[in-house]
Amino acid sequence: MRARLSVVLVGARNPSNIGAAARAMHDFGFDTLRVVNEYAPPLEAAQIRSETSHFIDGSKAAVAAGHILANARRFDRLCDAISDCTLVVGTTAIGERELTRPVLRLNDATEQIGRALAAGSGALLFGSEKTGLTNEQLSYCQLLVTIPMFAPQGSRHLSMNLGQSVAVCLYELVRGGFEGSRDIPYIGADAPTSASRERITQLLLEAMAVTGYAKRFPANAREHVVRQMAQQLGATETEASTWMGFLRQVVRSAKRDVPS
Amino acid sequence: MRARLSVVLVGARNPSNIGAAARAMHDFGFDTLRVVNEYAPPLEAAQIRSETSHFIDGSKAAVAAGHILANARRFDRLCDAISDCTLVVGTTAIGERELTRPVLRLNDATEQIGRALAAGSGALLFGSEKTGLTNEQLSYCQLLVTIPMFAPQGSRHLSMNLGQSVAVCLYELVRGGFEGSRDIPYIGADAPTSASRERITQLLLEAMAVTGYAKRFPANAREHVVRQMAQQLGATETEASTWMGFLRQVVRSAKRDVPS
Repeated sequence: MRARLSVVLVGARNPSNIGAAARAMHDFGFDTLRVVNEYAPPLEAAQIRSETSHFIDGSKAAVAAGHILANARRFDRLCDAISDCTLVVGTTAIGERELTRPVLRLNDATEQIGRALAAGSGALLFGSEKTGLTNEQLSYCQLLVTIPMFAPQGSRHLSMNLGQSVAVCLYELVRGGFEGSRDIPYIGADAPTSASRERITQLLLEAMAVTGYAKRFPANAREHVVRQMAQQLGATETEASTWMGFLRQVVRSAKRDVPS
Repeated sequence: MRARLSVVLVGARNPSNIGAAARAMHDFGFDTLRVVNEYAPPLEAAQIRSETSHFIDGSKAAVAAGHILANARRFDRLCDAISDCTLVVGTTAIGERELTRPVLRLNDATEQIGRALAAGSGALLFGSEKTGLTNEQLSYCQLLVTIPMFAPQGSRHLSMNLGQSVAVCLYELVRGGFEGSRDIPYIGADAPTSASRERITQLLLEAMAVTGYAKRFPANAREHVVRQMAQQLGATETEASTWMGFLRQVVRSAKRDVPS
């Protein structure tokens, strides 16, 4: 499904922003980048630099996404860049623009975008750093979305950095369950059992007793209070074992001191 | 609630990335930026430039977020930057790092973060551009989160641009967890601060040393391993106090046994 979505930068001026957009695409598994500019320089600058030195703007920003930059296509006109797409989505910060059409919050639009991509191909449009998408450019879109930002009453017009906008939008799309998201194998893999926690509880009670702590603070050494504390001990079985070993040693160490 | 979350950049090297992080914070309504660096240059470079020219890296990236940069504080040590926080969240791309603890997907962690912020204060940690957060730095965290990226089988290790990571994380918090979490009643309103957890860490290290545990199991008694264990100790300040009292007693009890 990712292969069916193109990211289209309309009028981007800064090569390093084009590189940053490519990097965000790479991070979230999108490959098709299109750049709409009447004049070639910005995309070419980003591309050429990526061949000559990795210390210069475009490719420095792109990092591992050099192949996305290299395969990016430039179009003179927006209509050509999106001609093969069945759904065209425009992003806008709204700002002082007078919009006469509904704008969805990004997170309310993902389902619709996903449905459209299941059947066709889509384009996600981002405007220039300075102006965003113009009303004329927005007119190519079937769907307008905005990233919900924080704007207290009377605050200045907000706009996001281009690369950050691309990252947030693609994150939101992937978040909603595009296929291929990475599995995270660590979640609760080997959490301690209740049996381990109970062994820790008993060891902790014993340690409190033999060190003299229970005598000084009997309220804190009541079994249910101590068991409560033991519930937090050890995020994994390995850590739980460490706790048991340590507490056994505390008991041993304290007993050496007791006259028998 | 936004006022209760600090963004903490640990070891960021590039002033323009610090500026980009500040801009993302501004976009989503967060104000408190802390930078941990042994040496001053990166933050100062971002700040000073913001006073002299808006064409240079730091403030160019920050745009309207100059006040966030100007108010940002630098700390020599991570523990000082988070000492007043009750929840410390570490971000990690995982990569080749071997993690022995559970990592939540960002979107599965927002509710927990929201609950914690309803009652206390939090820190969201981002590592350096080159290495991310180290295991030692992660050991200060009670919660680890990762931005789910796209990683086909056998693909290279992925890492996100720093500013884009900050943008995605803050977007996700604002997106739902935050607003909704106002309604979640919080039980246990006095979570321990990082400063308390660090005191427990040091007491636990001492207790392991004086009881002889550290000598028998040195691998388990390494500082970052012990600090990791201490992150789970004490759901409340009261419980944290109990732990401190108990560990002090363990130390006292063991020392009685040592010939002086």
